[in-house]
Amino acid sequence: MAKIPYKIYLDEKEIPRSWYNVRADMKNKPAPLLNPGTLQPMKAEELEGVFCKELIAQELDNDTAFFKIPDEIVEFYKMYRPSPLMRAYRLEKKLGTPAKIYYKFEGNNTSGSHKLNSAIAQAYYAKKQGLKGVTTETGAGQWGTALSMACAYFDLDCKVYMVKVSYEQKPFRREVMRTYGASVTPSPSMETEVGKRILAEHPGTTGSLGCAISEAVEVATTSEGYRYVLGSVLNQVLLHQSVIGLETKAALDKIGEKADIIVGCAGGGSNLGGLIAPFMGEKLRGENDYKIIAVEPSSCPSFTRGKFAYDFCDTGMICPLAKMYTLGSGFIPAPNHAGGLRFHGMSTILSQLYHDGYMEATSYKQTDVFEAAELFARTEGILPAPESSHAIKGAIDEALKCKEAGEEKTIVFGLTGTGYFDMVAYESFHDGKMSDHIPTDEEISQSLAKLPKSE
Amino acid sequence: MAKIPYKIYLDEKEIPRSWYNVRADMKNKPAPLLNPGTLQPMKAEELEGVFCKELIAQELDNDTAFFKIPDEIVEFYKMYRPSPLMRAYRLEKKLGTPAKIYYKFEGNNTSGSHKLNSAIAQAYYAKKQGLKGVTTETGAGQWGTALSMACAYFDLDCKVYMVKVSYEQKPFRREVMRTYGASVTPSPSMETEVGKRILAEHPGTTGSLGCAISEAVEVATTSEGYRYVLGSVLNQVLLHQSVIGLETKAALDKIGEKADIIVGCAGGGSNLGGLIAPFMGEKLRGENDYKIIAVEPSSCPSFTRGKFAYDFCDTGMICPLAKMYTLGSGFIPAPNHAGGLRFHGMSTILSQLYHDGYMEATSYKQTDVFEAAELFARTEGILPAPESSHAIKGAIDEALKCKEAGEEKTIVFGLTGTGYFDMVAYESFHDGKMSDHIPTDEEISQSLAKLPKSE
Repeated sequence: MAKIPYKIYLDEKEIPRSWYNVRADMKNKPAPLLNPGTLQPMKAEELEGVFCKELIAQELDNDTAFFKIPDEIVEFYKMYRPSPLMRAYRLEKKLGTPAKIYYKFEGNNTSGSHKLNSAIAQAYYAKKQGLKGVTTETGAGQWGTALSMACAYFDLDCKVYMVKVSYEQKPFRREVMRTYGASVTPSPSMETEVGKRILAEHPGTTGSLGCAISEAVEVATTSEGYRYVLGSVLNQVLLHQSVIGLETKAALDKIGEKADIIVGCAGGGSNLGGLIAPFMGEKLRGENDYKIIAVEPSSCPSFTRGKFAYDFCDTGMICPLAKMYTLGSGFIPAPNHAGGLRFHGMSTILSQLYHDGYMEATSYKQTDVFEAAELFARTEGILPAPESSHAIKGAIDEALKCKEAGEEKTIVFGLTGTGYFDMVAYESFHDGKMSDHIPTDEEISQSLAKLPKSE
Repeated sequence: MAKIPYKIYLDEKEIPRSWYNVRADMKNKPAPLLNPGTLQPMKAEELEGVFCKELIAQELDNDTAFFKIPDEIVEFYKMYRPSPLMRAYRLEKKLGTPAKIYYKFEGNNTSGSHKLNSAIAQAYYAKKQGLKGVTTETGAGQWGTALSMACAYFDLDCKVYMVKVSYEQKPFRREVMRTYGASVTPSPSMETEVGKRILAEHPGTTGSLGCAISEAVEVATTSEGYRYVLGSVLNQVLLHQSVIGLETKAALDKIGEKADIIVGCAGGGSNLGGLIAPFMGEKLRGENDYKIIAVEPSSCPSFTRGKFAYDFCDTGMICPLAKMYTLGSGFIPAPNHAGGLRFHGMSTILSQLYHDGYMEATSYKQTDVFEAAELFARTEGILPAPESSHAIKGAIDEALKCKEAGEEKTIVFGLTGTGYFDMVAYESFHDGKMSDHIPTDEEISQSLAKLPKSE
């Protein structure tokens, strides 16, 4: 048999034409969003002030298995999709493992991550609805960059609220967004009521995704012709990101390979949910079994140390309640936490699947993650984003277990993006100045004590 | 006929197995390097203190048309090669041109540019010779990053002297190089005799490639087990970079397309020389005609305003003399010149070809170049390096000429790299603070007055 190449490319004609909605195959559906006032499930019309109509339909649909991808979006996908599935021959050799390691590389576009897959979809539906623009939050800056690119493509205005700590660590992210015509504001800011309130309560805060979401939602709901869009957590985002998993599955099928273990990093769940979607579908339908592992930072451990409960998605408590693994909407990772994966909660889909035992979760300290990142860069050549490096670390550990057990398993992980804008964090790692912060049980309990009473 | 896809990928098996040496087809060979003391052609043994042996053989060989690419290098190339040839459908539409525009995208690797093609070759031969390490200079940082990656792969020490203005504009480039284990020193430095001399003569200088070359050569020749390597200008580098043109030609052949116009940016000539190699070969052999255009910055216009004469390759005047289009080895572009393409001279191969009328040259102001860059980013999605954007501007102008004339020509340009580390320059462009500097005739005459007397 011919040797499998390093890079497995599908043809442009093989870009999926439908997104796959894993909810259709879930027996226990993800819990509905609740109106924080009435504690009743949110109806479509209640969400229309915040979100675009077609996206709300996708958000609330637990039954339709496939959604056709509009031709305009497929056309945009052709700029960078299908993304390559890479065989990590060099990493395998370096580790001396009998395992076969593959990674789906989503960093081969200017936004530098998988976020573009959903950004272009959300911008498309906003344009179709005749909106002037959209608002959003960004943490590490990947989502904001992706949305800027998508908005430039459809000539939409784009207002980005960027978590202050990332804004300061990644000054050049702002310039990329500006190149694509977006405005970028560090969050919390004095531009919004909720920002002022948060700054008054927590002077000098370095921000959180939850704060930035509150600000972006406020601006969307108080500006004519604007809606809010979100890069992770939501069902619609996981739906769009299923393109990652569908391509991964198609590429593996093409080379006659079956995955045993699938590893993804998890912040809000967009990449992990997208990567595992078709595999999870098979698992839910009892057609195939896979070991599926979510990897999160020890400094923001929602799966591994959070509670499965209804909570606000934002710090300002103006968003609907979602049932998810959460650390409490007031939880803010310690300032020494670099990069993304800093959301206090987790996708309701993934939360339900994890709760029902369909997947595992593990967490790593950031110094260990950067060690894996550097090893990966030197062996595989690609400079990984800190977020993606959580999956690298998870995959390496699984490969080393295979080495110990002498098992030739097939490991597939998601390499969500590149680290070109994370050099401040790399510098602190090189200089031995990077530290770890693992929240104490007391810190987490205190944060969880403030969960809304919904049941 | 099926529509040509956006991205034309060759198979890994189609990576060229030989580099093509265009000198073999040149009737007028490039003039030999001269010993600056005797003014006699440099012999191989005279170069051995500076360069690796096999690279010297490649440097001096004007007759062998093809050099086999060692398997180890092909294996490394598979990390990122074949690089995609892209059809710029969106740019064509935006310009409203009947021209077909293709670009060979060399930014799809972590070094972010084509420089890796030669870096891995030079590191391979250094390793094969049993050296401990190599020294080099870098301008914009692309070559230094590429060499760091290549040295990490072969476990070689790597000392990089980086032009001070770029070191300051691109602080994060240093961290990428450190990720791959290299040391990086801003040039001119107080670490070398030549650096001290240059700093004494020009206090506060922002450096030049010529200065940095002098420092790197001094360190290589005075350190046991080290040799100097260079990322552009040299014949050997153009030889390695021919992989770009060979792949471009193969991809065009595959889709049944023939180039009419080929455009490349030109600093030292490595990308342009590589891109055009097989096309120029056909032109030299009279098999096909192509319009070939070199694009350079107005602030460093060696082709368009320099003199075809013997000159030093470095500011410290310790390197051999090369016959080339030059602005004088003391020429340093104004500090407001952003990015690379700042070498005072040009590849001897390209200089001879230009002198003999086989190619054209043009120059652009950097504000015009950044305007083209932003247009390209917004239409094609890729954030281009400032260097590459010279070729974009050149290609756009050719496409607009086609529009005016109603001609459906096929334009191919080299997109050498990405601009992730050039956001300081983009910021100054967005803020309207970017200025242009075109050297006066007097400035150029003064610099050329110091050319060595060699003939």
